[in-house]
Amino acid sequence: MTISVAVAGCTGYAGGELLRILLQHPEVRIGAVTGNSSVGDRLGAHQPHLAPLADRIVQPTTAEVLAGHDVVFLALPHGSSAAIAEQLGDAAVIIDAGADFRLTDPEAWERFYGSPHAGTWPYGLPELPGQRDALRGARRIAVPGCYPTAVTLALLPAVAAGLVDASQLVVVAASGTSGAGKSLKPHLLGSEVMGNMSPYGVGGVHRHTPEIVQNLSTVTDAPVGVSFTPLLAPMSRGILATCSAPIAPGVTAASAAAAYREAYAGEPFVEVLPDGVWPQTAAVVGSNRVSIQVTVDETAGRLIAISAIDNLAKGTAGGAVQSMNLALGLPETTGLSAVGVAP
Amino acid sequence: MTISVAVAGCTGYAGGELLRILLQHPEVRIGAVTGNSSVGDRLGAHQPHLAPLADRIVQPTTAEVLAGHDVVFLALPHGSSAAIAEQLGDAAVIIDAGADFRLTDPEAWERFYGSPHAGTWPYGLPELPGQRDALRGARRIAVPGCYPTAVTLALLPAVAAGLVDASQLVVVAASGTSGAGKSLKPHLLGSEVMGNMSPYGVGGVHRHTPEIVQNLSTVTDAPVGVSFTPLLAPMSRGILATCSAPIAPGVTAASAAAAYREAYAGEPFVEVLPDGVWPQTAAVVGSNRVSIQVTVDETAGRLIAISAIDNLAKGTAGGAVQSMNLALGLPETTGLSAVGVAP
Amino acid sequence: MTISVAVAGCTGYAGGELLRILLQHPEVRIGAVTGNSSVGDRLGAHQPHLAPLADRIVQPTTAEVLAGHDVVFLALPHGSSAAIAEQLGDAAVIIDAGADFRLTDPEAWERFYGSPHAGTWPYGLPELPGQRDALRGARRIAVPGCYPTAVTLALLPAVAAGLVDASQLVVVAASGTSGAGKSLKPHLLGSEVMGNMSPYGVGGVHRHTPEIVQNLSTVTDAPVGVSFTPLLAPMSRGILATCSAPIAPGVTAASAAAAYREAYAGEPFVEVLPDGVWPQTAAVVGSNRVSIQVTVDETAGRLIAISAIDNLAKGTAGGAVQSMNLALGLPETTGLSAVGVAP
Amino acid sequence: MTISVAVAGCTGYAGGELLRILLQHPEVRIGAVTGNSSVGDRLGAHQPHLAPLADRIVQPTTAEVLAGHDVVFLALPHGSSAAIAEQLGDAAVIIDAGADFRLTDPEAWERFYGSPHAGTWPYGLPELPGQRDALRGARRIAVPGCYPTAVTLALLPAVAAGLVDASQLVVVAASGTSGAGKSLKPHLLGSEVMGNMSPYGVGGVHRHTPEIVQNLSTVTDAPVGVSFTPLLAPMSRGILATCSAPIAPGVTAASAAAAYREAYAGEPFVEVLPDGVWPQTAAVVGSNRVSIQVTVDETAGRLIAISAIDNLAKGTAGGAVQSMNLALGLPETTGLSAVGVAP
Repeated sequence: MTISVAVAGCTGYAGGELLRILLQHPEVRIGAVTGNSSVGDRLGAHQPHLAPLADRIVQPTTAEVLAGHDVVFLALPHGSSAAIAEQLGDAAVIIDAGADFRLTDPEAWERFYGSPHAGTWPYGLPELPGQRDALRGARRIAVPGCYPTAVTLALLPAVAAGLVDASQLVVVAASGTSGAGKSLKPHLLGSEVMGNMSPYGVGGVHRHTPEIVQNLSTVTDAPVGVSFTPLLAPMSRGILATCSAPIAPGVTAASAAAAYREAYAGEPFVEVLPDGVWPQTAAVVGSNRVSIQVTVDETAGRLIAISAIDNLAKGTAGGAVQSMNLALGLPETTGLSAVGVAP
Repeated sequence: MTISVAVAGCTGYAGGELLRILLQHPEVRIGAVTGNSSVGDRLGAHQPHLAPLADRIVQPTTAEVLAGHDVVFLALPHGSSAAIAEQLGDAAVIIDAGADFRLTDPEAWERFYGSPHAGTWPYGLPELPGQRDALRGARRIAVPGCYPTAVTLALLPAVAAGLVDASQLVVVAASGTSGAGKSLKPHLLGSEVMGNMSPYGVGGVHRHTPEIVQNLSTVTDAPVGVSFTPLLAPMSRGILATCSAPIAPGVTAASAAAAYREAYAGEPFVEVLPDGVWPQTAAVVGSNRVSIQVTVDETAGRLIAISAIDNLAKGTAGGAVQSMNLALGLPETTGLSAVGVAP
Repeated sequence: MTISVAVAGCTGYAGGELLRILLQHPEVRIGAVTGNSSVGDRLGAHQPHLAPLADRIVQPTTAEVLAGHDVVFLALPHGSSAAIAEQLGDAAVIIDAGADFRLTDPEAWERFYGSPHAGTWPYGLPELPGQRDALRGARRIAVPGCYPTAVTLALLPAVAAGLVDASQLVVVAASGTSGAGKSLKPHLLGSEVMGNMSPYGVGGVHRHTPEIVQNLSTVTDAPVGVSFTPLLAPMSRGILATCSAPIAPGVTAASAAAAYREAYAGEPFVEVLPDGVWPQTAAVVGSNRVSIQVTVDETAGRLIAISAIDNLAKGTAGGAVQSMNLALGLPETTGLSAVGVAP
Repeated sequence: MTISVAVAGCTGYAGGELLRILLQHPEVRIGAVTGNSSVGDRLGAHQPHLAPLADRIVQPTTAEVLAGHDVVFLALPHGSSAAIAEQLGDAAVIIDAGADFRLTDPEAWERFYGSPHAGTWPYGLPELPGQRDALRGARRIAVPGCYPTAVTLALLPAVAAGLVDASQLVVVAASGTSGAGKSLKPHLLGSEVMGNMSPYGVGGVHRHTPEIVQNLSTVTDAPVGVSFTPLLAPMSRGILATCSAPIAPGVTAASAAAAYREAYAGEPFVEVLPDGVWPQTAAVVGSNRVSIQVTVDETAGRLIAISAIDNLAKGTAGGAVQSMNLALGLPETTGLSAVGVAP
């Protein structure tokens, strides 16, 4: 089986990571790579690490160029995917790394994104109960946001098993700068970022907030509420999500750990660490693994769960390929690695 | 007025920062600099940035060497200060950058430090209500921990004014690696630290936890409880403390901001940022300033306050010198800068 | 004595560092701060570390605004200084942190900068023989480039004393990213810079090349030739310049070191390190010090001299203030520190 | 074909990278992993990124444990390999990532390493003319040093084609900190390394110097001399080697580039970049690729060649596996990637 894929938005960080992973995928042949202001450039000028593709020429992001592939990945600015998808029709599996089709609630979409809701596609997080089956054979997939991937997987077993008061979730998540994309903004300059920790989107205004609530609401009837604060950390890749919530009566560190181990038994890319070992982003860089640990602070009465992912891999491109594998009936782990690149 | 000072523990990061700041202090003459395994070395071999002191020789940390100074700063491992202080007697002001004399509750001390409690000295955080007066003329000062400085100042106005439920505080604080000292531990190697965010002391076991509770309990009769998670960040200096708590009825972003501005009006080293601007560690590196912002997430029902400090400056050596100034009757800001070194 | 100064280009890195240093200067009162696209902004929005100036409003860079100050610092893009200087006339000392007036050879200017030569001002490197006197009372000063400062001071004693073949100099100098300014270019993004070493301007095309040759030619009649390769390093500040040249007969490590110590005896900001100790950029960050070491590789037949400076301090703003002090008849070290901020 | 391999020294950076690459190798089964002070530990405690091997137990580095594998990789401190190799005898292919068997000249060995010379094994750099054939079927392989790999490949075509005076080579090479291993030394702490560039081994004393000379001497009858200065850079991985030498008459940028392209045509892991594009370490991290560019500075009369490698991959473990493939008759690129992990 050889699957032809196109990547729209090939010069950005998400596009580059898609291509990096697809180059390792044994069933994939990389077809068109498309961009916007970079049309006509050698891909090597934008993605020098992708040596085997260095001489590919960036083509325009049009339906004509993208047509004829088995799978089209969209790594485009928010709001651009619907039009392309419509033009491409049903011939291709379309996997959108953007936000356009993630939310089910049009009102939440409009409040956080300020534009009309384009619709909802199957959500590419196979670790959500029932979602693996929903992705098999899917022709449209909305890739989860990077923070929602890290946070959802950190809290899912606790919320699902009723270990915590899900209305009082508190999340502080530090991300590497690639999560902000290749945007030319002063605060993303190396001189500003190095040696610097800074928050942004404080106070519940980050667009990933409703996506976290949506995900966790799939496993509980209780109301879900989250205080979510993202931080920009002086590193290129990685998310460390520190999540906590008030415990339900009787929950202990041991019972929480047992629930996590049970919930994730058999998950190929979720690692619940041994007792006393905590996740670190360096251990997951370049891999599709999410690394998780949980404990209970009995004095504070809170369960604390921490996860680490590579925001570009499991948090974007790896998650997208994992969903592609399911959609196409391939083994879910094909072309994906659980091994990080460290130090 | 010329004050002679000695610094015990001159080769570590706290000792180095004390010397850096004292070199700028117009009223100070630096006397003995002492160490342990480094005795006989040029100070320049350990602190190459302190060029004017490069040819000083490290002397042993003994009462004989430290005697005869107006002020003795102790930047020693926990448990070492009491013996030295006793030997030095009342002739010198002694300012301990270690933890030994911070806690008032012997039981809390023993639970978190595992050794007998040495006692309690006046606590060197002038921004605590009433504490400035307590420090004037003091002959013994316990310098606050770096995390407690950042967290206390971030939450103090909210707790004092009853804006939050102080029993449900949640703090996630990222620190630069200098907070861990010059310890030769594998996880502190540059190869491990760069590109890496990792938690440690998770679950309420970090020794700074009772110190935070102690501080905030001075401004409220309500019970204070905190879930505190420290993170190691890939930078040398700086703490960013993200703090939140459930709001009391009626509290808004505007009322919270007003309370913070009022609480800190006149504080020389506390900066409450303009609306919408959030602290970042890079802006306080090298300075004695703490930078703070607060808001309310009405959906989540939580007040969020974030502070940034330089863990070595305001968090240790700067705070120590600020207290020294008060103890000696000098203007509180003498020799201290509110200006950071950036980028 | 109180000197009123204006800083044109206050939102960039050079402008920010000028203001940081001037805030510490006991004889200076900071007047107008001016910009271009940032006119009307709070300065704090661009330079959050300069807390005491946070509420200053950025004014336009016009002769009207800059007039009436004793000293005007220009931290402007190349090509902008001449017009402003002409308009300001002789009332103010003008110190240009840009390149416009550094080169004496119009042909070299035009070859490297591609525009007409604006002229030549007294060159602000007091460590050059004779230059200290030339700067006393000067009304116009061209601040040296950051690389030329580091390289000139590393090689000056060797070239002046004829220890090397000055026609065969080889320099590889690594700079922190602030040397490139706040330019919004993709390769300066944090995601690109962190974990990355890269060369640029390879092959003798960097504009600082003729300035290095010009400086070293002032101390020798022999032809001076340099192969200069700049590198971008993953740090915000600092230059480490590794310089070498074939030795003249009989030169040894000891004789070279002696020549360097003699040449720099009495220089307030040049530190020739003890034998066997090599410069590192972290030790000079935030300081006006240049740290130097020299040795001879007898097998290779080359003298190797390495210097470290803070590119923004001694390499730009500190050097500018040092020259200002000379121009105004103040003690040369006023307001400048030889102490770095580390770690 | 399934090859059983053992890795001695599995907890260090070289050992970890060997395991990372071997996990991707389709023909390899990982057998014993051995250590010294870590015997009995879970491998996950030392190499958390190698999730599939996390539960492996570190065994002692003895001939008994290492026996019975087809290939044994040694990632041991210098001086440890000879004894193990002798005990293992001829049953296994032994690939030594240490220095013990790299040098052919016992005198050079003793001068630089201060111990008796253990012997010389086939040198694992297939890109050296004739060396690929020498490695086919080899039973003992000495893996090149990381700097010699980067420097040799940067200069090889220039020296081989007589484009330069090989007696006047000047190399300044910046390395990430993993090149220094997991040694617990103060200058390798994160607090010291971040934001810092520093030289070491200056003056021709670095042990990789004779290895560079040895390699380049294989392609010329002219004397080879090199001034080699290594720098420690604030990044975990990567070497950027800036190399130059006086040009022979008539050599131009174009002729040099042509020579490089011809020399490396067909090399699977050597990338000569397009004109005007320069190597950067970030583009080769995690890959076995060496990225090279060359030009001529006609004013300075020097050829400048710059290479970038991942010191742990092509510079150590990747190079080792490339040689193993040749030794075992596998396609040379098996299990090795030319794709980097960026940003």
